[in-house]
Amino acid sequence: MKCFRTKDLVSMESLTTADIVQIFELTARQKKERAKKGANKPVLEGKVLGMIFEKASLRTRISFEVGMLHLGGRAIYLDQTNFKLGERESVYDVAKNMERFMDILMLRTFSHQAIVDMARYSKIPIINGLSDDEHPCQALADLYTIIEKRGELKGQKLVFVGDGNNVATSLAYASALMGMHFVCASPEGYTLKNEVVEKAQRMAVLGATIEATTDVREAVKNADCLYTDVWASMGQEKEKEIRAAAFREYQLNESLLALAKPDCLVEHCLPAHRGEEITDGVIDGPNSVVFDEAENRMHVQKAVMTLLLGRG
Amino acid sequence: MKCFRTKDLVSMESLTTADIVQIFELTARQKKERAKKGANKPVLEGKVLGMIFEKASLRTRISFEVGMLHLGGRAIYLDQTNFKLGERESVYDVAKNMERFMDILMLRTFSHQAIVDMARYSKIPIINGLSDDEHPCQALADLYTIIEKRGELKGQKLVFVGDGNNVATSLAYASALMGMHFVCASPEGYTLKNEVVEKAQRMAVLGATIEATTDVREAVKNADCLYTDVWASMGQEKEKEIRAAAFREYQLNESLLALAKPDCLVEHCLPAHRGEEITDGVIDGPNSVVFDEAENRMHVQKAVMTLLLGRG
Amino acid sequence: MKCFRTKDLVSMESLTTADIVQIFELTARQKKERAKKGANKPVLEGKVLGMIFEKASLRTRISFEVGMLHLGGRAIYLDQTNFKLGERESVYDVAKNMERFMDILMLRTFSHQAIVDMARYSKIPIINGLSDDEHPCQALADLYTIIEKRGELKGQKLVFVGDGNNVATSLAYASALMGMHFVCASPEGYTLKNEVVEKAQRMAVLGATIEATTDVREAVKNADCLYTDVWASMGQEKEKEIRAAAFREYQLNESLLALAKPDCLVEHCLPAHRGEEITDGVIDGPNSVVFDEAENRMHVQKAVMTLLLGRG
Repeated sequence: MKCFRTKDLVSMESLTTADIVQIFELTARQKKERAKKGANKPVLEGKVLGMIFEKASLRTRISFEVGMLHLGGRAIYLDQTNFKLGERESVYDVAKNMERFMDILMLRTFSHQAIVDMARYSKIPIINGLSDDEHPCQALADLYTIIEKRGELKGQKLVFVGDGNNVATSLAYASALMGMHFVCASPEGYTLKNEVVEKAQRMAVLGATIEATTDVREAVKNADCLYTDVWASMGQEKEKEIRAAAFREYQLNESLLALAKPDCLVEHCLPAHRGEEITDGVIDGPNSVVFDEAENRMHVQKAVMTLLLGRG
Repeated sequence: MKCFRTKDLVSMESLTTADIVQIFELTARQKKERAKKGANKPVLEGKVLGMIFEKASLRTRISFEVGMLHLGGRAIYLDQTNFKLGERESVYDVAKNMERFMDILMLRTFSHQAIVDMARYSKIPIINGLSDDEHPCQALADLYTIIEKRGELKGQKLVFVGDGNNVATSLAYASALMGMHFVCASPEGYTLKNEVVEKAQRMAVLGATIEATTDVREAVKNADCLYTDVWASMGQEKEKEIRAAAFREYQLNESLLALAKPDCLVEHCLPAHRGEEITDGVIDGPNSVVFDEAENRMHVQKAVMTLLLGRG
Repeated sequence: MKCFRTKDLVSMESLTTADIVQIFELTARQKKERAKKGANKPVLEGKVLGMIFEKASLRTRISFEVGMLHLGGRAIYLDQTNFKLGERESVYDVAKNMERFMDILMLRTFSHQAIVDMARYSKIPIINGLSDDEHPCQALADLYTIIEKRGELKGQKLVFVGDGNNVATSLAYASALMGMHFVCASPEGYTLKNEVVEKAQRMAVLGATIEATTDVREAVKNADCLYTDVWASMGQEKEKEIRAAAFREYQLNESLLALAKPDCLVEHCLPAHRGEEITDGVIDGPNSVVFDEAENRMHVQKAVMTLLLGRG
């Protein structure tokens, strides 16, 4: 298919329902191909992915790098010791340099605007690998894991329990585009931003509903998938104690899980702080799909890179 | 051969005499193949090695990475800025993630237990690239270098002069398995642990003997190979002065070397602190094989990875 | 051609006019090959480049690494967290180890002597990727960009405006070898060293002239290429304010550019501190070739590596 029409993956907003369907179809095809034949066709042979990290990463870095290797390409890791985007030189100059050496670029930054700017200044495709505002690759992996386990996304109730953060934002937009029922249940002061909820509602198709609430026990009723994330993200370590108090009732534990559907999936973007936002019993229990979800980061990203580079 | 039967290389103890023989045979074969044809068969094509480093490395990192390249595989370097195993997320979770992306994993950690745990939790092969307790890849390279120069290991007298540390421990076990006479000569307070000596003695086959002593001049008599290591390892920098005083008489210098066999080999795992544990005259002298030994790190590790991945 | 006769690229001095011509011919050939066919012949297949960085880098690291990928080789990045050359172990020992694992080595160091020593101790080719004294790869890229835009180097007037630093030094030597008119215009106290000017004058062939001056407005008259660099290089951040005052009149701005030839090229080795040594109007203006110049780092380095490894 040739309809993939976005140069970059900066925000979930920049994708259409058709784009996501196309990503998931290619993900399934490439994953099956590798499982069957032990290798993928080297559709990205000779291609070089640059990966700029302003903060630590395990899954994102590895899943992108190994994904490129699977497809015949190579990745170059540029870590935080060499980068504070816009500090040593302007974002514009970094962009104009990168496009001379790289074929595609992934960035994990604090500032979302830095990624927006890179995409604007640069001729090559730019992928958001986590910013303060969004985490679109994560949301794609999360939804792909649901479709893999359930066979469909339309009508599925996905409940995010915790901080209305970048991951929750991308999930809200993705759910809107795929006809899902998304609820973000957070303590007072940490709810999903009104503007995000409203934007997601405007994006909603196929009967999707988007909601933010503080009533977690009501929210998780009938959930097809429960999702949580750490209470204090990277850069928020100082607020750790205040947040721990605020989120106490929002722990994803056995009693909360009991309110959802019996076969409810449990997702977490990892790293998990066991005993804080999720209990050992839940993350290691039969409903948990967190390691499949982590692996699917790689599979959806392989598809995203393939499509952005016009090789889909 | 298909008899390689260990999933991991965590400790020298986990190997048998037959395993080591098999490793050395493959090492010799791959080294010869490369010398003759300029390249190895890409038996690890498509395989990805993850390398987790909690402390600095030169030889270990390079020898593993270049070794994988020779065999058609790829290595991903994960350094200490991103890793404190068990800190950002549990060892269990790291293990369950890694096995989804990597085919094989090498770790350099402070805690030996962390490597033991990774091996237990993870489906993929785990290699100890140096822990507080052991350095099995080093010991394999050391013995391989002896066999390469001497043609045999059985009956060879290997004297380790210095701190009864992780390297000495792995050498004791390896010597026990290969029928060698191993003596560890250390100052009072730094001798090889009793439990290590006893365990090595229990492992001894083919007439091997294992001994720890403080009498260095007696120990080196008739040695076929003299071995030393820095007096203060990584993480022990604060004890530098105390150790320098304690080890003064244990310097591997010309007068000590004169007590060994005339063609005695000199080994050192490097980095060397010249003028401390070893003199320039000895490390640069005709008995020294330290750079062959360093190169052999790569060759034995190639064989180890090939066997662990079932491609031997 | 087989006449490339230097083992290393440590200093511009070590090259002859014929060497540079040969580098540029191969650069042009490989660049055209890639533009036409989308890929280069893998003339460095199986070769491994080691890259040792004592200070931060963007262009140097990426241009070398991607260059090696283009030619079928691989690069291993060894960063400053693991390296202080000569600290953990002697430069000699690093050299004797590296030659066992790597095919070619690039170093970015503070000390120029460290690179000289590596070249002396090591059997493999050593490339200077920036030292306190020189930046030969940069100068090659700069001149290649001029020849690409102008068709010739002989008789071209190249004016370096700013600190008489390592970049200026390598440009002086390169200009001398290629018959150019090189002027380095710097504030009192920051002029190109007398010994460099004299050495460059002794190297001069094909009518080349080399000059250092403090009269910037006189210097830039009739220039074919204006060049500048940051006022405070890496490691000089503390002198930032003193230098800013000293260099104020040496900003490469519109009024200075107006004194040069109308089609004068503008070069900068980057990173640029916009508004300091160069204005937005000039670096983004029609005379600027700074991003072509950055890209050409990669192309000349590919040629240099190919020739040093005897595959030209």
